Amino acid sequence: VSADARSRRSAAVIVVGTELTTGLRIDTNGPEVARALEHAGFSVDVTAALPDEVLVLARFLGDVLPSHKLVVVTGGLGPTHDDITREAAAHALGRPLVHDPAIAETLGAAIARHAEAEAAPRVLRQADVIEGAAVLAPTIGTAPGQVLEHADGTLVLLPGPPAEMRPMLSAFLEHAGASAATRILRTVGLPESDVQLRVDRVLDGAAGIGFTVLASPGLTDVVLRDVGAGEMVLSDIAEKVAVALGSACYSADGSTLAEAVIALAAASGLSIATAESCTGGGVAAALTDVPGASAVFRGGAVTYADDVKTALLGVEPDVLASHGAVSAETATSMATGARERFAADIAIAVTGIAGPSGGSPSKPVGTVWFAVAAPGGVTTLLRTLSGDRNGVRTRATVMALELIRQAIASRARHESGAD
Amino acid sequence: VSADARSRRSAAVIVVGTELTTGLRIDTNGPEVARALEHAGFSVDVTAALPDEVLVLARFLGDVLPSHKLVVVTGGLGPTHDDITREAAAHALGRPLVHDPAIAETLGAAIARHAEAEAAPRVLRQADVIEGAAVLAPTIGTAPGQVLEHADGTLVLLPGPPAEMRPMLSAFLEHAGASAATRILRTVGLPESDVQLRVDRVLDGAAGIGFTVLASPGLTDVVLRDVGAGEMVLSDIAEKVAVALGSACYSADGSTLAEAVIALAAASGLSIATAESCTGGGVAAALTDVPGASAVFRGGAVTYADDVKTALLGVEPDVLASHGAVSAETATSMATGARERFAADIAIAVTGIAGPSGGSPSKPVGTVWFAVAAPGGVTTLLRTLSGDRNGVRTRATVMALELIRQAIASRARHESGAD
Repeated sequence: VSADARSRRSAAVIVVGTELTTGLRIDTNGPEVARALEHAGFSVDVTAALPDEVLVLARFLGDVLPSHKLVVVTGGLGPTHDDITREAAAHALGRPLVHDPAIAETLGAAIARHAEAEAAPRVLRQADVIEGAAVLAPTIGTAPGQVLEHADGTLVLLPGPPAEMRPMLSAFLEHAGASAATRILRTVGLPESDVQLRVDRVLDGAAGIGFTVLASPGLTDVVLRDVGAGEMVLSDIAEKVAVALGSACYSADGSTLAEAVIALAAASGLSIATAESCTGGGVAAALTDVPGASAVFRGGAVTYADDVKTALLGVEPDVLASHGAVSAETATSMATGARERFAADIAIAVTGIAGPSGGSPSKPVGTVWFAVAAPGGVTTLLRTLSGDRNGVRTRATVMALELIRQAIASRARHESGAD
Repeated sequence: VSADARSRRSAAVIVVGTELTTGLRIDTNGPEVARALEHAGFSVDVTAALPDEVLVLARFLGDVLPSHKLVVVTGGLGPTHDDITREAAAHALGRPLVHDPAIAETLGAAIARHAEAEAAPRVLRQADVIEGAAVLAPTIGTAPGQVLEHADGTLVLLPGPPAEMRPMLSAFLEHAGASAATRILRTVGLPESDVQLRVDRVLDGAAGIGFTVLASPGLTDVVLRDVGAGEMVLSDIAEKVAVALGSACYSADGSTLAEAVIALAAASGLSIATAESCTGGGVAAALTDVPGASAVFRGGAVTYADDVKTALLGVEPDVLASHGAVSAETATSMATGARERFAADIAIAVTGIAGPSGGSPSKPVGTVWFAVAAPGGVTTLLRTLSGDRNGVRTRATVMALELIRQAIASRARHESGAD
């Protein structure tokens, strides 16, 4: 999988912030920069978080600069005393910081606008650049980025806020003439080992294509990478892998499962409603996370209490009393009630036991009933999902989205049939 | 903030996996281990992700082992050819791998149970330990951990799956006699700079207490750390900081805003319902993410389409026609409708424009109306929230939770009053 790495240009990604090294915040900048670099043909062989300490960062830079063609640092370029990236990089390169009057002028205008006179000296620190730096102008924010060519390669300093970092990174990579060559295929419902096997069979030892299989609860992604075969071969292989993965493959363009469901519903002219118990609104939240969801998503009910299932969705108290809230009968009634009351084409119902309490020998934690009400009738499904409360809720949400996807696909097949 | 770091024992955290260095997966193990080490009195001065490549990891270990009292590595201890942590660590320490018959026996039993005979040689790789290692037995899974004392400090190798890693890390830290000393205070609604100022005033240069302020959309956390003052002084300072933060401080025990809302509602005997448009179920999902939510959460409606607002919540078509879906009147009607139909004490309604489309000059993207229906009547609030679709939805969800918290607190004050 990674035997290709040494043949490509090596890169290191460093994110700066004591909130990261202390684990108080999860880093997302590092992975984002790493993805962009890999996409551009670099091989990232370390992603590191360092604290806001000049000497610690300078020492680390001293270790990685000689062995990497490209080192990208994000964060620590702002105006406060915690922002030590400029000083650390200057120290590591053995070059002085020099005051850039052009940047200072831009900063002066920004200071005048905001009229925080006492902050001025601190803000003006951002006009200090390392000798020999090419400056990346900020499109938003005030902190400029810096590109430094040195004996062993290139060092790039970028601001930490993603909205400021992104355009500068794109500008740098575009300028560096970096090229792209990956394909991502996403699947739902197949075990990771099964996906691995199917990809292996297609590749059959083909040279010049690398791949990685990534599993998260209920979902498995395949990332194919051109490492010498060329982009046409990559496209050809990606198509064959998609065929091998069959209907489990819901996306070949990077879209998420919720995005795929919304796109499919929009293309089919079908509207969606949700009726949730144990997922507590998670299915509706996933669907409405997609821009443009309003064109197909009618709405949803989160019916936690039993009498609310009756009041909002019309589930008969008798059904709840004789079969329980977690049953095929209640799920069916929730789905048909939601389909009718939301005037939707397809309604999904989810009712289960997410835990940690509420389980019993006959219905242990993880027991979840699903029902889909569609023009052709209602189908139900029972699953016993693994994991803690969060794991059960996540897996149930994925399953619910997949059942909507199947219902739309089956409806589309039916429509195009000979009836 | 971090001037204390050098006086403590330095540590490095390394997570192994090409899916991390390529940015295909966000690392959460590193931050979790870092938090545990900081909590135990270590100062983590690098958290790094390395790929599944023996030589790259061995070289990095060679760099960090001499300068850190403790190095913890997670991942790469499994049975597949990608699992290269044992080899890399052996290489870096200059020690051989030796076959441990006791581990092999345990693994043999596991293999026999699963009866995957062809996998046996690979599984047995996990019985290879570095010469001189103390073995951490797995409580689940098959991969044992290893603790290696060397000339400059200690190297600990742990498996990657969090459920296998956690108990071994705890066991190691307990055995190492590490002590804890941090306090976390969480606030909602205050600007980060205001929180910083209030904490500064309480600390007033007091020695031996470090602090970090962490902001995320709508929420700001203060982490206080004993760096010499002693735990009694830390507790005293934490109490004073909590007073200085006032009612904006919703948690002094690490609980989230949703957890605080559920706990407060349970203590007050008040039930909650939600009526959401732009947050699309996010408020309900946040509340039901809390174990035990079912005791106070009645349910919620996600009313995306206008006619669904009428059908499910009884919002008059006239109100929608004359004021629009994003208005004080519609929010009020949604909240009162939800309070009545869910038979809840307190109902929150959220209706707004999350974008990217749907904005207008008079109601730009980010315009959100909130309404809270409580026993004392309905209150409404208009906010123009910043950020992209995801940012607006996140900020609106935080605001909705905070409004429920305020409604419960105000109700509690009312109840305890002289009426």
